[in-house]
Amino acid sequence: MKNSMEEKSSTLKYKHLGIYTQNEHVVYMREDCHVCVSEGFEALTRIRVSNFNTSIVASLNVITSDVLLDGEIGLSEAAAKKLKVSGNETLRVSHLEPIDSLSYVRAKIYNQKLDYMAFDEIITDIVEGDYSNIHLSAFITACAGNRLDVNEISDLTKAMIASGKQLNWNKEIVVDKHCIGGLPGNRTTPLVVAIVAAYGLTMPKTSSRAITSPAGTADTMEVLTNVTLSSEEITAVVEKEGGCFVWGGTAQLSPADDVLIKIEKALDIDSEGQLIASVLSKKSAAGSTHVVIDIPVGKTAKVRSEEMAQKLKNHMEIVGNAVGLNVKVVITDGTQPVGRGIGPALEAIDILKVLKNETDAPIDLMERALLLAGELIELSGKVEKGKGTETAKEVITSGKAYEKFLAICKAQGRFSKPVLAPYKIEIRAEKSGSLKRIDNRKIAKLAKLSGAPQSKSAGILLNVHLNDEIEKGQLLYTLFAESQGELNYALEYYESHNDIITIE
Amino acid sequence: MKNSMEEKSSTLKYKHLGIYTQNEHVVYMREDCHVCVSEGFEALTRIRVSNFNTSIVASLNVITSDVLLDGEIGLSEAAAKKLKVSGNETLRVSHLEPIDSLSYVRAKIYNQKLDYMAFDEIITDIVEGDYSNIHLSAFITACAGNRLDVNEISDLTKAMIASGKQLNWNKEIVVDKHCIGGLPGNRTTPLVVAIVAAYGLTMPKTSSRAITSPAGTADTMEVLTNVTLSSEEITAVVEKEGGCFVWGGTAQLSPADDVLIKIEKALDIDSEGQLIASVLSKKSAAGSTHVVIDIPVGKTAKVRSEEMAQKLKNHMEIVGNAVGLNVKVVITDGTQPVGRGIGPALEAIDILKVLKNETDAPIDLMERALLLAGELIELSGKVEKGKGTETAKEVITSGKAYEKFLAICKAQGRFSKPVLAPYKIEIRAEKSGSLKRIDNRKIAKLAKLSGAPQSKSAGILLNVHLNDEIEKGQLLYTLFAESQGELNYALEYYESHNDIITIE
Repeated sequence: MKNSMEEKSSTLKYKHLGIYTQNEHVVYMREDCHVCVSEGFEALTRIRVSNFNTSIVASLNVITSDVLLDGEIGLSEAAAKKLKVSGNETLRVSHLEPIDSLSYVRAKIYNQKLDYMAFDEIITDIVEGDYSNIHLSAFITACAGNRLDVNEISDLTKAMIASGKQLNWNKEIVVDKHCIGGLPGNRTTPLVVAIVAAYGLTMPKTSSRAITSPAGTADTMEVLTNVTLSSEEITAVVEKEGGCFVWGGTAQLSPADDVLIKIEKALDIDSEGQLIASVLSKKSAAGSTHVVIDIPVGKTAKVRSEEMAQKLKNHMEIVGNAVGLNVKVVITDGTQPVGRGIGPALEAIDILKVLKNETDAPIDLMERALLLAGELIELSGKVEKGKGTETAKEVITSGKAYEKFLAICKAQGRFSKPVLAPYKIEIRAEKSGSLKRIDNRKIAKLAKLSGAPQSKSAGILLNVHLNDEIEKGQLLYTLFAESQGELNYALEYYESHNDIITIE
Repeated sequence: MKNSMEEKSSTLKYKHLGIYTQNEHVVYMREDCHVCVSEGFEALTRIRVSNFNTSIVASLNVITSDVLLDGEIGLSEAAAKKLKVSGNETLRVSHLEPIDSLSYVRAKIYNQKLDYMAFDEIITDIVEGDYSNIHLSAFITACAGNRLDVNEISDLTKAMIASGKQLNWNKEIVVDKHCIGGLPGNRTTPLVVAIVAAYGLTMPKTSSRAITSPAGTADTMEVLTNVTLSSEEITAVVEKEGGCFVWGGTAQLSPADDVLIKIEKALDIDSEGQLIASVLSKKSAAGSTHVVIDIPVGKTAKVRSEEMAQKLKNHMEIVGNAVGLNVKVVITDGTQPVGRGIGPALEAIDILKVLKNETDAPIDLMERALLLAGELIELSGKVEKGKGTETAKEVITSGKAYEKFLAICKAQGRFSKPVLAPYKIEIRAEKSGSLKRIDNRKIAKLAKLSGAPQSKSAGILLNVHLNDEIEKGQLLYTLFAESQGELNYALEYYESHNDIITIE
């Protein structure tokens, strides 16, 4: 069949349209082009586009205006990048042969178990860009709602690891940590890197920027140092200092995850299977051997019950073992923000206070960082069980962690001090009573409306904790913004939501 | 919140780009426009676009070329149509408030039951165009794999009926039929319409065009008469003749179905729940009261086992009852094509032979049509049980069905005789033996490669049936095409597939 199909292909001249479609491969063709006319474009929703050395699958959009002239063809930027087209190139379009791995997606929709081979074919095709958003969403949905058992999650994770680059640090032990999101201000990562690197472990930490939160670790660290480094630069920093805190966006580790996570965000779901596969595939591909996972549990955290957390812990550890990672899961308190600052610069200030052993350093943030660093130190086998936190504490109090932190920042190109935003407003208690609840989601939203993370110094500085006895008029938190307008948006949200902080 | 969000909106001038995106609402904006810059377009995957009287939700594609100039905005054709924009209009874009019904989609992903209210909100938002393809695919997938119970299917069906126009024919009994696809040549619908309308029942039949098959009923009837009629024209035809055979594409009955069915086709799945909701919502919205559903069962038909067919029959009848339809399901033989012709004109020829009682009329097609027309006549209560087929036969043999058929064609604007395609090739048996199997899917594919349905007179004329004793060299079927090229494509497929017809 392939021969006859190829005979039916058409040749068109590439025109740059510069259309960003959020990753989907789209091909633009005129309605009067040969292929559209001869096949009827309704039937041609997905086609193959080739140039002299490679080919991609793309969704067809048909153009009826003069955006394209006779004989021209356009591509979305994602498709152009994948096909590596340059200007004035000639492209060939042809029928799409069936994508075999979609039969596994259908099998999963019909509740069948998939094996490694099936996941491997699916993930390979996803990385190739052969799946449309419709196919990706069906795969995500069919795997959600506890429809993957732990063997399937292991196989999915292995397939995702195999789909991209895999780093090798030539070290016996390479440690990493990950927090299952949802807790504002909980910026332990830079502290943990500084502690364990100062202790002598290797921790080449890559982090993400915020997508829906007021700050990601990369946003916070960018206040203090450069985080966009090349692979070679990262290697040099890690070899010199034993650790780094860089943005992981360019690393091409587990590239399927980057595609799937966008679909999960669009659906606003976090399926257990995808979550585990996402986290552990990234860690394994990054060359980690020992990983501590922090799962904060709370009604407004991502994981809402101890039961869910225990199940996730159990599955994380089984899958970790299956993919050759030494995984320790720590379930922590997720009922309120950690630290005082929420927003890049405000969180950076917290981090420096802890590292410098300042008297007003947020104790909760320090304790959380010591717990996680301690677990990593224990996991590495360098101290006996139960001595990890203590060891981590010595590294902080001795000033070695701060020293290491500054050294890594300098190795990454600069160390800059965080500054506060010029516009602020103090939010005070409207009545006296006990502080009963802090809504993590709403306080994060408030910080975002004030401008974080785009405005680095915007956000919230918290003055209170759960169970504090509050006097009417007492300062609860300060809102910071870089413009009066942003401060007003945040204030308006505060005024229409009386359950951000509940005092009873 | 809504107020502050609206303040953040931007005004841009509409430019016609003429981009057909297969129904999805897409908005095109320059990367340097105010909203993209101030919010970061990664976060803005879905936005609200408004003109002076209405608004839509659309997926954002960002343009970096001069396809759009400063201050301009573009829309996909589906979005432009929904927003009813004319040239040079000013559009406003703003943040998208959360789409509440997506929480029900998520609930379904997590295996919860949905009620009527939930389905109604989902379907209403789908018809509004508020769901992206990602959301639609998640909804379809979450409902597939037997994840809808019969109450949910009933509620989904009711919601789909309520989402569009509902016709009312002012008749106590309005009959209809539907065949659960997959059987080439099985063109009983025009025969059933002619018989029951001649008998005195009302059957305002709307049909679809082929999407993946070599002919839909609308394609076949278009050979003989006009099928694209306005609502007023359809009403006039039905009032005069008691029946019609028109294309249903413009009727806006159960519009959610038109959206969902495209996603199901892209995924190549047919979930039971969506199938039942699709068929019965269309029938109910079209004003039918009594419906016969034909389910052909065979290894290469859509429904592959008697067990699946029985379950589908059971659920169809329960849901029919729940939505106020009198539904009778008939399970028929789906092991081979019905009639001799496969392709619009060839099927039209079969239909005329049956209506004219010609000696070489295909008996299987006639018997299938008599069975279905008979069931409808019995269902209407006008004859006693067991007398339907006999009654239908009298209508055919008396010539009244043919007379009615011609009358309806003329009421629809013309009656044209079908013609055969100029290029043909005879496919003969390569050995003697018994005809064991006909692969419905492969023979349909062969007919499509010959040019059907775009080439009306292309297709296949079958000369044999299952279990026939075949002599080597005997004519099995004739391939017809409108060009030598298309004939060659079909021939090439035939040559590389020796299991289209199996003789042993």
